Amino acid sequence: MPSVITLTTDFGLSDAYVACMKGVILSINPKATIVDISHSIEPQNVVQAAFMLHIAHRYFPNNAIHVVIVDPEVGSKRRAIILLTPLAYFVAPDNGVLSYIINELHPLRDPIAHPTSRVHLRKEIKENIKVISITNSTFWHQPVSSTFHGRDIFAPVAAHLSLGVPIQKFGKRIDTLNIIPPLTPDFDSADNLVGHVLHIDHFGNLITNIKNIDLSKDAIAIRIGRHLIKRINRYYAEVEGLAVIPGSSGHLEISLSNGNAASFLRAKIGDQVKLTIQKKKL
Amino acid sequence: MPSVITLTTDFGLSDAYVACMKGVILSINPKATIVDISHSIEPQNVVQAAFMLHIAHRYFPNNAIHVVIVDPEVGSKRRAIILLTPLAYFVAPDNGVLSYIINELHPLRDPIAHPTSRVHLRKEIKENIKVISITNSTFWHQPVSSTFHGRDIFAPVAAHLSLGVPIQKFGKRIDTLNIIPPLTPDFDSADNLVGHVLHIDHFGNLITNIKNIDLSKDAIAIRIGRHLIKRINRYYAEVEGLAVIPGSSGHLEISLSNGNAASFLRAKIGDQVKLTIQKKKL
Amino acid sequence: MPSVITLTTDFGLSDAYVACMKGVILSINPKATIVDISHSIEPQNVVQAAFMLHIAHRYFPNNAIHVVIVDPEVGSKRRAIILLTPLAYFVAPDNGVLSYIINELHPLRDPIAHPTSRVHLRKEIKENIKVISITNSTFWHQPVSSTFHGRDIFAPVAAHLSLGVPIQKFGKRIDTLNIIPPLTPDFDSADNLVGHVLHIDHFGNLITNIKNIDLSKDAIAIRIGRHLIKRINRYYAEVEGLAVIPGSSGHLEISLSNGNAASFLRAKIGDQVKLTIQKKKL
Repeated sequence: MPSVITLTTDFGLSDAYVACMKGVILSINPKATIVDISHSIEPQNVVQAAFMLHIAHRYFPNNAIHVVIVDPEVGSKRRAIILLTPLAYFVAPDNGVLSYIINELHPLRDPIAHPTSRVHLRKEIKENIKVISITNSTFWHQPVSSTFHGRDIFAPVAAHLSLGVPIQKFGKRIDTLNIIPPLTPDFDSADNLVGHVLHIDHFGNLITNIKNIDLSKDAIAIRIGRHLIKRINRYYAEVEGLAVIPGSSGHLEISLSNGNAASFLRAKIGDQVKLTIQKKKL
Repeated sequence: MPSVITLTTDFGLSDAYVACMKGVILSINPKATIVDISHSIEPQNVVQAAFMLHIAHRYFPNNAIHVVIVDPEVGSKRRAIILLTPLAYFVAPDNGVLSYIINELHPLRDPIAHPTSRVHLRKEIKENIKVISITNSTFWHQPVSSTFHGRDIFAPVAAHLSLGVPIQKFGKRIDTLNIIPPLTPDFDSADNLVGHVLHIDHFGNLITNIKNIDLSKDAIAIRIGRHLIKRINRYYAEVEGLAVIPGSSGHLEISLSNGNAASFLRAKIGDQVKLTIQKKKL
Repeated sequence: MPSVITLTTDFGLSDAYVACMKGVILSINPKATIVDISHSIEPQNVVQAAFMLHIAHRYFPNNAIHVVIVDPEVGSKRRAIILLTPLAYFVAPDNGVLSYIINELHPLRDPIAHPTSRVHLRKEIKENIKVISITNSTFWHQPVSSTFHGRDIFAPVAAHLSLGVPIQKFGKRIDTLNIIPPLTPDFDSADNLVGHVLHIDHFGNLITNIKNIDLSKDAIAIRIGRHLIKRINRYYAEVEGLAVIPGSSGHLEISLSNGNAASFLRAKIGDQVKLTIQKKKL
């Protein structure tokens, strides 16, 4: 039976919103272990939440229940879903916040147009995962507000899941999901890999969507804005100055030793980064 | 036996103050479940803490123990109290921080003059609640500092309560309490309801002391500063721009879809809001 | 068997770094009680972390496991250690972050030159404490990144410790440690006690390395920058204005009642403070 419930939101920590969710969970399952992943997602930044959840969830026990509330459309008709993968449960609005989780299980084949698009899960994906549209109000906290489904729907559903209620009790199985593209970097005409900054951490490190394993030996530098960074380091203190680091998340980072790369580069989430490669001589 | 202990303070999260309280609690009751409600109350803002606690405590299990430390007079002769209601325990300085809790159980009849006033609990209130003046140092952490009773008095008292120590062991029953007025909005001569902003949340929503149920069908707009907001919405993304929302706390909120209402309006805690009503034609 | 694991880092709370450590711990010991001491240590400020840990750890249950990750040299050859004292376990990089803990057990005799110096533990210290160099990768999270040993080495080691694995399983006993001087204030030629600001708290109180017990009756004032503060108070609200308070940490604080002393004095961590004494008449 799952026992750990994690929370990822854009609620911040100054209000009691997160506490209300915890109170609701503990009222249903007093033995639940609740862990905050982050409550500092940029307000309504679904992509940042999707990325951070994707990185963090791997380190939690199997069958953990991950609740993700970055939910600009709360109160509208957007769906609420449970996603069950071989590794974990996810309870979230159906707004693309689970895109990286889905894409890792089975990379989505077709190019997806901006903005958020509803995709049909392919047969081989459906064998590995289940998606439920949460509709059974029996498991909700009443009365349900129109602005705080985290407290009134997602938290109590997670708590009942942690008590072992089977997912089919919460609603019907569905086979479509909303996905946010682009999920992965792409090659330009010169074979450079073009990605972007997905997250800026507390130290000012820029975490990109280019994976460490994409750092082939032909790669010679990363370009961001007007800066070309030619140092590829193993750890932060290895040398002075700006450097590219294969990060602990599995993604390339741009860092400034003894400094804040984001401030120095005036970089922000969404900025383009380009991994330039050595041209082969003809 | 109560098992959940919540903490509400103005300590912030950059220091170890909250951690020291948790260490003291776990040293006494290693099985206590401790939940942070908020540590971002404005320094020494007793009214904000009173409101936030009042909203959040409803979502916790029955018999939860709510510790509230916003305590500008720590070290002086202000009393420390335990309040037992039909729902929960509260452990706090007697400085008005429990005003909303008391007022909800039995609305205080008489107008109360500013500032904090000591009121006598009426007979029908005393049947439902018990108030203890904490004086028995047996249950304190020694030595008791003069500046951190959260760690040395309130936390250990809460921990012993969570082990089932009866409240009369902590001190004598009293029947007066300090209350902070005004607790509720009031009508002006034109029958408009005049309240004020009690809290500004992480998204910039202004939470007022006007309740959703006060939003009669005659209400047509809210005035704040020079702004008259005529839209009353059901949820944040419903329309663009400023709107009044019946909030998830049971209180009216002023919000700006895809924006920060507090920044836009340059509003702050304590600002007046006025719910204007439709004049009946004669 | 130890049961509480505390975390002190400079990771902040906006990222999932702390959550990843908690996930790793709970994957190994699902029953661990994890408490955050602080994640707001200034980036790479080993001295501030050393001080805060030293103050906070006293309030936790015996045999608690304190994990401290302020680790500018992560990925380099700096050692990772377990320190076992009569009171608790500490799991940390060997960069001086345990200096105050060691110094309290047995004040270091010899003057230590700046910067961080490796000192040999004296015989009488070695009878009371054990230091292990963490080298046994069996207990690490694989693969080990070069930038996040908190997640890959320190967290899993703490989790295995909490399950009762004996410390000698994690590596060999060593008898040197890196220590950061100066740990204590010193007397100037006029017998004034010269210390410095170790921490600035959320309220703007300046916490110094001068202990309350150093406040002899000859002490008449504290000088910081151009300010001479002559009031020595017992608690914050006792009088208006700047005052010296014997703080709840056991260290003298400079505070401003109803204000922020740090902003008012434009003080920062590391600033000199001088406790001036009454000159004896000849």
